[in-house]
Amino acid sequence: MEEGLIPYVSVDCVIFGFDFEKLNVLLIERKVDIEGTVFRDMKLPGDLIRYDEDIDASASRVLFELTGMKNIYLEQFYTFGSVNRIKEKTRDIIWLHSIDHPEERVITIAYYSLVKIESREISEAKIVNNASWHAITEITELAFDHREIIDKALEALRNKLRTQPIGFELLPVKFTIGQLQKLYEVIFGTRLDKRNFRKRIASIPYIVSLNEKQKGVAHKPAQLYKFDKKKYSRSKTEDLYFSV
Amino acid sequence: MEEGLIPYVSVDCVIFGFDFEKLNVLLIERKVDIEGTVFRDMKLPGDLIRYDEDIDASASRVLFELTGMKNIYLEQFYTFGSVNRIKEKTRDIIWLHSIDHPEERVITIAYYSLVKIESREISEAKIVNNASWHAITEITELAFDHREIIDKALEALRNKLRTQPIGFELLPVKFTIGQLQKLYEVIFGTRLDKRNFRKRIASIPYIVSLNEKQKGVAHKPAQLYKFDKKKYSRSKTEDLYFSV
Repeated sequence: MEEGLIPYVSVDCVIFGFDFEKLNVLLIERKVDIEGTVFRDMKLPGDLIRYDEDIDASASRVLFELTGMKNIYLEQFYTFGSVNRIKEKTRDIIWLHSIDHPEERVITIAYYSLVKIESREISEAKIVNNASWHAITEITELAFDHREIIDKALEALRNKLRTQPIGFELLPVKFTIGQLQKLYEVIFGTRLDKRNFRKRIASIPYIVSLNEKQKGVAHKPAQLYKFDKKKYSRSKTEDLYFSV
Repeated sequence: MEEGLIPYVSVDCVIFGFDFEKLNVLLIERKVDIEGTVFRDMKLPGDLIRYDEDIDASASRVLFELTGMKNIYLEQFYTFGSVNRIKEKTRDIIWLHSIDHPEERVITIAYYSLVKIESREISEAKIVNNASWHAITEITELAFDHREIIDKALEALRNKLRTQPIGFELLPVKFTIGQLQKLYEVIFGTRLDKRNFRKRIASIPYIVSLNEKQKGVAHKPAQLYKFDKKKYSRSKTEDLYFSV
């Protein structure tokens, strides 16, 4: 084996949440002191992998430490490993020095995660960890290559949604067709025709209408639906496609 | 930063090739001397990442060293990082000792690659590097977790094929619809209806019929087609789906 330096390995997590209006990502504020002036930007939650820890376990740990939640939907989607990925911007280099992070190379294994934004643990995350939700369309300055990581996560989420109905992880257990349509619209960044969408949904056997309507809404209460796991597992391949 | 050991990082490549009959993977023979008896199995081509090398460049280097080819279709699909992934089988541990590989943990970033099997460089690869093609349905004993890596590569290839026509990377520039159908059948491990397949292909604007037929075949020569990159880049999303 070749002698020499070895890159460090980390995990980073893109945590998606849907608030019925926008697709959001949970980010951590980072403060960088540049010659006495504090510069603030955002970063993804992440950490170095421990030597005795499987990589999936490492991502779960990062999520748990941030949100207090276990068993969240988590999917590894890409590994980012260009040589200078954490050393391209001055503020990144200054920040790495300030936290005593050695200047070695870091390869990061990226995961995306889908959470129900209204859950108690998630809504408290902001207070506990200096983390907050940011609409994906409004994210500006990010640390390192984290913008690229989020873009790739969104691409991976879109590809996954085309063959698996994982969008339900982002919705409450009971949801309306309007909410489901809005979710697809914000993920794919496009408007969908209401009538065609309803027709397509009606043809999917694992989206089940409940004998129940919305409560406490100002507008006319809409029919509630749920995702039926059993019916989904029995579905034929052609029912799994959702082309947007 | 935490003190302690750091996992090594490697790349492994699943090189797919299609011989008009089967889907094949290029594997390297490994000999393990277990108490005087030589045990032979196969492994994926791979190597440790160099400290000054981007991970994609590392995968390209592995491919070039094995096949002499550059600019091959290459796609990162998953990173395998369970703590004991290279230390679960006795013969793996013996082999690691024999090549003086330290017993540290190795995380591997896996790529799949699509090559035209009939190309000159690929057909010579066997002689140069102790590598040979193996039908994916007939692969038996593999080193480490390489079976799992191949299975995951095939899953990634299937998912990709559902939204991008990358199968053309595995075919000659001019191909018949029969060859294209066979390619989809071996990748998805299923039989397809000939008439439906032809109907679907006829509706895809970027698969273009050539004014040319097969030559030197024993059966009735079939019409030749090509993949039109320009037409593909102008295609609408709905033309890109191929549900099998």
